[in-house]
Amino acid sequence: MAASRNHPAIRRVAIFGGTHGNELSGVFLVKHWLKHGGEIARPGMEVRPFITNPKAVEKCVRYIDTDLNRVFDSQSLSNDHAGKVPYEIEQAQKINSIFGPKGSTDAYDVILDLHNTTAHMGATLILENSKDVFTIQMCKYIQKSMAPEPCAVLLIEHPGVKYATTRSIAKHPIGVEVGPQPHGVIRADILHRMRNVVKYAVDFMQYFNEGTEFPPCSIEVYKVLEKIDYPRNDSGDLAGIIHPNLQDQDWKPLNPGDPMFITMDGKVTCYEGENTVYPTFVNEAAYYEKNQAFAKTEKVTLTAQSIHCNSI
Amino acid sequence: MAASRNHPAIRRVAIFGGTHGNELSGVFLVKHWLKHGGEIARPGMEVRPFITNPKAVEKCVRYIDTDLNRVFDSQSLSNDHAGKVPYEIEQAQKINSIFGPKGSTDAYDVILDLHNTTAHMGATLILENSKDVFTIQMCKYIQKSMAPEPCAVLLIEHPGVKYATTRSIAKHPIGVEVGPQPHGVIRADILHRMRNVVKYAVDFMQYFNEGTEFPPCSIEVYKVLEKIDYPRNDSGDLAGIIHPNLQDQDWKPLNPGDPMFITMDGKVTCYEGENTVYPTFVNEAAYYEKNQAFAKTEKVTLTAQSIHCNSI
Repeated sequence: MAASRNHPAIRRVAIFGGTHGNELSGVFLVKHWLKHGGEIARPGMEVRPFITNPKAVEKCVRYIDTDLNRVFDSQSLSNDHAGKVPYEIEQAQKINSIFGPKGSTDAYDVILDLHNTTAHMGATLILENSKDVFTIQMCKYIQKSMAPEPCAVLLIEHPGVKYATTRSIAKHPIGVEVGPQPHGVIRADILHRMRNVVKYAVDFMQYFNEGTEFPPCSIEVYKVLEKIDYPRNDSGDLAGIIHPNLQDQDWKPLNPGDPMFITMDGKVTCYEGENTVYPTFVNEAAYYEKNQAFAKTEKVTLTAQSIHCNSI
Repeated sequence: MAASRNHPAIRRVAIFGGTHGNELSGVFLVKHWLKHGGEIARPGMEVRPFITNPKAVEKCVRYIDTDLNRVFDSQSLSNDHAGKVPYEIEQAQKINSIFGPKGSTDAYDVILDLHNTTAHMGATLILENSKDVFTIQMCKYIQKSMAPEPCAVLLIEHPGVKYATTRSIAKHPIGVEVGPQPHGVIRADILHRMRNVVKYAVDFMQYFNEGTEFPPCSIEVYKVLEKIDYPRNDSGDLAGIIHPNLQDQDWKPLNPGDPMFITMDGKVTCYEGENTVYPTFVNEAAYYEKNQAFAKTEKVTLTAQSIHCNSI
């Protein structure tokens, strides 16, 4: 029998909403839980809902000065800034002082950061570290609980693509991305799916704290390979848009020769890679400005040894 | 045989995109036609594509200071403004000087204003005047050309709901609203639908100018009755969201007793009216701030006598 891994009890958990102020499922859920926390409360554990970008929420925009979900690097989090500090940098420092400091033993154990996407990704868990046994076990538990509805796991562990997320200050960060939903809209079906993901996540932590041993497991994840931009003209304007065959096809195989983009004149750009890849974040509204039409991923299997709580 | 109505030839037509800067089908089409106008050019007729809110387009937001599609009233269009004038008021005056003046014989004959919605409305034509025989005939032609795909006609002729649209400066204004599409996103399927509507509209005007007589016709339209707001708490925040049974059900009957909204606790608000109505603009992102969850409409039949061009 494989050796079981001891892991300390989970004592402090945060649920972040409004990191992007126009992604409304998380905003609405977190605002609800701030008034009615019973649904996410669990014995022996602080579960703290928190609106991370209140000004962006108030204006129902993604951000005020800069994307909050890209500024949790050591330079931005230091106080060493000259001149006027962008709102989100100030806010990142504040969040880091409450839930971090990032990388320290004082940091929160788990942060679930709630996001929406205009892409047809369904419920998706975003994992930052392929070696984080605790989070892999949590993803496995959430996937099993969500079944038969799919719940993909996206691994963003890639030097060229990884970014300094808001949740990255926790010991175990996990992004929750649910779509399709237009930004600025709340759909009941998407809200329900996100609410279930959070419920299963806190259930998992409760059972873990109570002594449940989670056996060795493996999960299939989509590992980010590369961002793909739209075709653009010399001025940087779009010269092509997502081909109808690729639209809404997140997580489906994109094979060599398959269409990716189409121009106004009907000219098609096809995928010329050698291997089948799995697109995700296809036609996400917020990524036009980030020069990303979709991200290519490959399927990878991650394994985790069994875990149990060493505080029992 | 019913008397045919003489109508002057159509000489000046404008196609507006970007009245809301984040409704991207119209922005993308108009930008394309500014460079490659052949697709919409027709003999004997000026067809002028125009970006109405360039600053909002550049920032990919609905508007900069105020909604451009609400300020074409006589007060806003007059030059009698004290202090700093909002960007969209300036822009409205400029547009009125080029394509109007509103209500004058110098005004453009036809303006098609291109919009997107997050609601599942499909291709929709918005009509402002139930007596405008020429525009009713054009709607009929577009509907027949789009078949078997539906193309609804929304009549906004209602004192409490009608607003001073950008297109209202034309003799024959027509709104083109295509969805569902998240704001800030371009979908190929939605673009294709909007492009077809415009093509059929300019085809109609060409055939009319060339002497085709269009026989008497009738069309079924959805006439706006009332805006319905979300349930809200004392602070004005949403207390409920669109019920899953109503989501994506634009133009479908809403019968007395049918659910409209649901709260986080599962409490359902039902429709208590006496008559079946037909909701539209269900869960449109831009209407949260306008206190509108959807609009109730009723089905009405409009008739138009035959028309032919008196310049032949």
